[in-house]
Amino acid sequence: MEKKILIISASDSDLEVMGGAAKVLEEFGVGYEITISSAHRSPNRTVKLIDQFHKNGGKVIICGAGLAAHLAGVVAAHFPLPVIGVPLKAGALEGIDALLSSMQMPPGVPVATVAINGARNSGLLAIQILATSDKALEKKMVEYKKGLAEGVEKKSEKLESSR
Amino acid sequence: MEKKILIISASDSDLEVMGGAAKVLEEFGVGYEITISSAHRSPNRTVKLIDQFHKNGGKVIICGAGLAAHLAGVVAAHFPLPVIGVPLKAGALEGIDALLSSMQMPPGVPVATVAINGARNSGLLAIQILATSDKALEKKMVEYKKGLAEGVEKKSEKLESSR
Amino acid sequence: MEKKILIISASDSDLEVMGGAAKVLEEFGVGYEITISSAHRSPNRTVKLIDQFHKNGGKVIICGAGLAAHLAGVVAAHFPLPVIGVPLKAGALEGIDALLSSMQMPPGVPVATVAINGARNSGLLAIQILATSDKALEKKMVEYKKGLAEGVEKKSEKLESSR
Amino acid sequence: MEKKILIISASDSDLEVMGGAAKVLEEFGVGYEITISSAHRSPNRTVKLIDQFHKNGGKVIICGAGLAAHLAGVVAAHFPLPVIGVPLKAGALEGIDALLSSMQMPPGVPVATVAINGARNSGLLAIQILATSDKALEKKMVEYKKGLAEGVEKKSEKLESSR
Amino acid sequence: MEKKILIISASDSDLEVMGGAAKVLEEFGVGYEITISSAHRSPNRTVKLIDQFHKNGGKVIICGAGLAAHLAGVVAAHFPLPVIGVPLKAGALEGIDALLSSMQMPPGVPVATVAINGARNSGLLAIQILATSDKALEKKMVEYKKGLAEGVEKKSEKLESSR
Amino acid sequence: MEKKILIISASDSDLEVMGGAAKVLEEFGVGYEITISSAHRSPNRTVKLIDQFHKNGGKVIICGAGLAAHLAGVVAAHFPLPVIGVPLKAGALEGIDALLSSMQMPPGVPVATVAINGARNSGLLAIQILATSDKALEKKMVEYKKGLAEGVEKKSEKLESSR
Amino acid sequence: MEKKILIISASDSDLEVMGGAAKVLEEFGVGYEITISSAHRSPNRTVKLIDQFHKNGGKVIICGAGLAAHLAGVVAAHFPLPVIGVPLKAGALEGIDALLSSMQMPPGVPVATVAINGARNSGLLAIQILATSDKALEKKMVEYKKGLAEGVEKKSEKLESSR
Amino acid sequence: MEKKILIISASDSDLEVMGGAAKVLEEFGVGYEITISSAHRSPNRTVKLIDQFHKNGGKVIICGAGLAAHLAGVVAAHFPLPVIGVPLKAGALEGIDALLSSMQMPPGVPVATVAINGARNSGLLAIQILATSDKALEKKMVEYKKGLAEGVEKKSEKLESSR
Repeated sequence: MEKKILIISASDSDLEVMGGAAKVLEEFGVGYEITISSAHRSPNRTVKLIDQFHKNGGKVIICGAGLAAHLAGVVAAHFPLPVIGVPLKAGALEGIDALLSSMQMPPGVPVATVAINGARNSGLLAIQILATSDKALEKKMVEYKKGLAEGVEKKSEKLESSR
Repeated sequence: MEKKILIISASDSDLEVMGGAAKVLEEFGVGYEITISSAHRSPNRTVKLIDQFHKNGGKVIICGAGLAAHLAGVVAAHFPLPVIGVPLKAGALEGIDALLSSMQMPPGVPVATVAINGARNSGLLAIQILATSDKALEKKMVEYKKGLAEGVEKKSEKLESSR
Repeated sequence: MEKKILIISASDSDLEVMGGAAKVLEEFGVGYEITISSAHRSPNRTVKLIDQFHKNGGKVIICGAGLAAHLAGVVAAHFPLPVIGVPLKAGALEGIDALLSSMQMPPGVPVATVAINGARNSGLLAIQILATSDKALEKKMVEYKKGLAEGVEKKSEKLESSR
Repeated sequence: MEKKILIISASDSDLEVMGGAAKVLEEFGVGYEITISSAHRSPNRTVKLIDQFHKNGGKVIICGAGLAAHLAGVVAAHFPLPVIGVPLKAGALEGIDALLSSMQMPPGVPVATVAINGARNSGLLAIQILATSDKALEKKMVEYKKGLAEGVEKKSEKLESSR
Repeated sequence: MEKKILIISASDSDLEVMGGAAKVLEEFGVGYEITISSAHRSPNRTVKLIDQFHKNGGKVIICGAGLAAHLAGVVAAHFPLPVIGVPLKAGALEGIDALLSSMQMPPGVPVATVAINGARNSGLLAIQILATSDKALEKKMVEYKKGLAEGVEKKSEKLESSR
Repeated sequence: MEKKILIISASDSDLEVMGGAAKVLEEFGVGYEITISSAHRSPNRTVKLIDQFHKNGGKVIICGAGLAAHLAGVVAAHFPLPVIGVPLKAGALEGIDALLSSMQMPPGVPVATVAINGARNSGLLAIQILATSDKALEKKMVEYKKGLAEGVEKKSEKLESSR
Repeated sequence: MEKKILIISASDSDLEVMGGAAKVLEEFGVGYEITISSAHRSPNRTVKLIDQFHKNGGKVIICGAGLAAHLAGVVAAHFPLPVIGVPLKAGALEGIDALLSSMQMPPGVPVATVAINGARNSGLLAIQILATSDKALEKKMVEYKKGLAEGVEKKSEKLESSR
Repeated sequence: MEKKILIISASDSDLEVMGGAAKVLEEFGVGYEITISSAHRSPNRTVKLIDQFHKNGGKVIICGAGLAAHLAGVVAAHFPLPVIGVPLKAGALEGIDALLSSMQMPPGVPVATVAINGARNSGLLAIQILATSDKALEKKMVEYKKGLAEGVEKKSEKLESSR
């Protein structure tokens, strides 16, 4: 399976949360790679990963990082296609630092930021991006959204029948 | 020109900032529509716009809103492809409310959020999304990024020669 | 019993907190419905619920939601009578996101926002609203407030006698 | 005209903003009183105003205050019917202090809080409250909401024709 | 012993923290009363307590409250001598709401605010206030401060000897 | 006139705001000194000022500082009687830094903190402290508070007559 | 003169503020270079600058950046000697984003962060760092600190003589 | 071994976190002293410690403090060489108060601030400062940075082999 998505976790301690992105990609049958690299501790490795992924025809990079979360910004500096940032809850400020570091990018270099610890949504957003040119994937997303609505209905029915 | 991008401004007072998204789409030669619709004042119109745009083959929706910025979230509830949220600086809190309203979406319904007033970056992100299946556009984006770096070099040279 | 109040919980995980609204309505003998619906996962169901409740003569809707809490705003876009928003403590930001998403509504579409996790107060506010045209209910509210003051006196006496 | 709404402005410098509440009440033809009283500088006057208004059959009190905005909370301590708080932008913190002071009320004593400087919305909310027992007023509110949607359509048409 | 200090706790759940104020007053041998009263649930009782305490020659009131902590402000509206506010950590915002509600008082009505949960410091400040006219108490405070410095020295010595 | 109050302004640029403290002391006929000293730029001078003021029988020190406002804390480390902190609006954070630096003192060393730029209230609090042992001053404060209430009444009358 | 300090400004619009660092280096007679480079727009240039500066025997790098200020972190990833970050006031959040992005670095890669817009202090800190091995520079710094204290004394005298 | 670094912990409860600074200094073989002293409880001891350390040829002081963390600022007022501040997570605000108190120093007196609880980074920064004049130490730092990158590579390999 072609690996169109690259998930980079800034540290191994973030893998548990970032696994949420991998899980949704698997649910949708989208090929991906997942690795660890840091903007601060392994800057050269990070640049090499991006270049290799780009050469291999990769389409979207998802970056998960906490604290001064520079990973998504650094990746976006090198990669011409969409970069999604997942600010992670970590340290004393519990993610508000990572949120601002990911999102407040200067004009010219966007990062598509999702919610704090929003790994699942980062995967869904990557799928939506691929779905702009993949009708089958778009159809799956339409089905997924129907499923969300049906899930709400079922929970409501359960609530009503329990009263 | 096919209109793959829809820009929705939550009010006419936000048009000036959101024009930054339109401008960059024009620079890259990407077709777009721009309109005004509010999640709160014209909810039915908003849903109709989304459905029509989807039927016409539209690919990405950019939403600009301030205060309790629900527009991107409401659009994302209905649209299966990428939705980009631009939190706008407005009111006493100057955008921190719009930022959180746009970004902190629950699992299942992502909004790709850019910086406060980051209209230009919302346009660039939309282009990057289309570029995942459009080599010519990807090439333009690579050129654009080179231009950013050259712009920095030129300003540095000017600084050095002025000293 | 006529159901003048509708409580909508954005997810089943919020039901425990939102039960505080139901409890106070029961204490005052006010009829209510409680259901689950999401602005993002089940947007059509949400609109149908509002329309049905309005046709049935419903008077006040209480919405509980966390994170980017759009539910109350979306409901207020469709419902011409009072909408009360309860921002719920959830996620890394623990409710400050829901607070701002609920409260910072644009001119034209108010949401009556109570404290984070203030489900009990949302029920009391709904009762106060009905009490503007229901003398018996107003009298109960006057009694309730006396009870609050007496509760403080009793606790003070207990404190003094324990010293 | 019966005066069902009382607007209390915490100081004369807040009258300009709070006039937005008065204006919308006049648009809807709802009788109101407007006065100045402070929880801190004129506490006894504030209590007397509330008691008098309650005896006269008043239904809703709107309070506008900035900084440590205690006015709505103090009024809610004495008044059994709905109290609406408008946190005002003032001082170095520009309203975030007033927002939290108005909204974070303890269980038992709700304040219906609207946006910072949301005076217009406080008036609309008061009208919605009266409309729960006044079909003519409810109908006006339904018309008002239609007008909001039409306003958006007109502005969109103007935008489109200008392009 | 004359009771020059009145400690008011806004609820019985706050007594444990506010006991820190009582404890330090006992250490310094300063007479005090402690009671429970709420600005919102027992407003009339609160005013009576203040008036009675003032008539009895009381000098300083310490108020502990969480959330929209109006107690100190309401007390300061009625009492002409120093009022000390202790913002308490409570609810989702963990005291930042109480901090701003206590401290951001408008010109004319000060509240001497100490740290969140700073009950011990509120007692020390009350003693410092009484010490402005009580040489024996001032001397005790000078000794207390020496003791603080000696405590640091002892802990340093212990650290050094342990290395 | 005995100088019982010392006002220290952390820099000359803060004198304009801190003049509000001096003004209210003059209105009440309370003797004071005002000077400039910094915890960071003139630490030795600051300690000498405190010691001299204490020897001369000074009773209360008011400190005004912005940014990392350490002045009040440093003064409180050396002075056994009340220290009042006025956090000043300055720099990019507009006083929230000074507020937290002044107020969040550790157990053992309180600072009586007033609102951001609350120089007038710092003066009133100093007067209230002196009034705990000065019946004439207490009487003036009672009159002052009556004046505040009358001021509100006059403004209300003016508002009513203008309508 | 050997250029031991490198000042990097993330954009030409930041040069005015960052000039404050250059100015203090000139006052102390310390050689420096100043240039423009962006972590996001010119990432390769940034790395080259660092490597060249390191090879030339450079000792300290000062980075000024606003918004998602990744520059100092990116530089610190590559440079083994001290990196000073100056968060700049810019955009809707006025520097709180840059502050957190600069300061909340993960373990292993420190950035020495100074105040928002604290360019002058970044220069002084660079001088203090060089002064750890340069007695003449240390002596100048001791003199500078004396001058700060004398400046306070002069302003105080002026204040006293003006009263 | 010459003791070029002084670590001051504001209280014994902060020693566990601040031990992270000591640990990294030991890893690099850099001599240091560690002690407890408070800007507020033992101000004279703090000044004596600084003067003695300076006379003994000390080069860098690391200060760890929570709440209104004045320690680093007070030390910087007296010491002409680099002062590093470590804001500690403590109390209701969990370090944001200490962060602002440490970092927002006025022009003239810098504090090199690292992340909340960033004790390890404070030690690394101190080593980088000494390394500006110690080639052996610089070499160790270059090796350390290589080790960080290799650590990332190893964790990545482990991740890949586990899949």
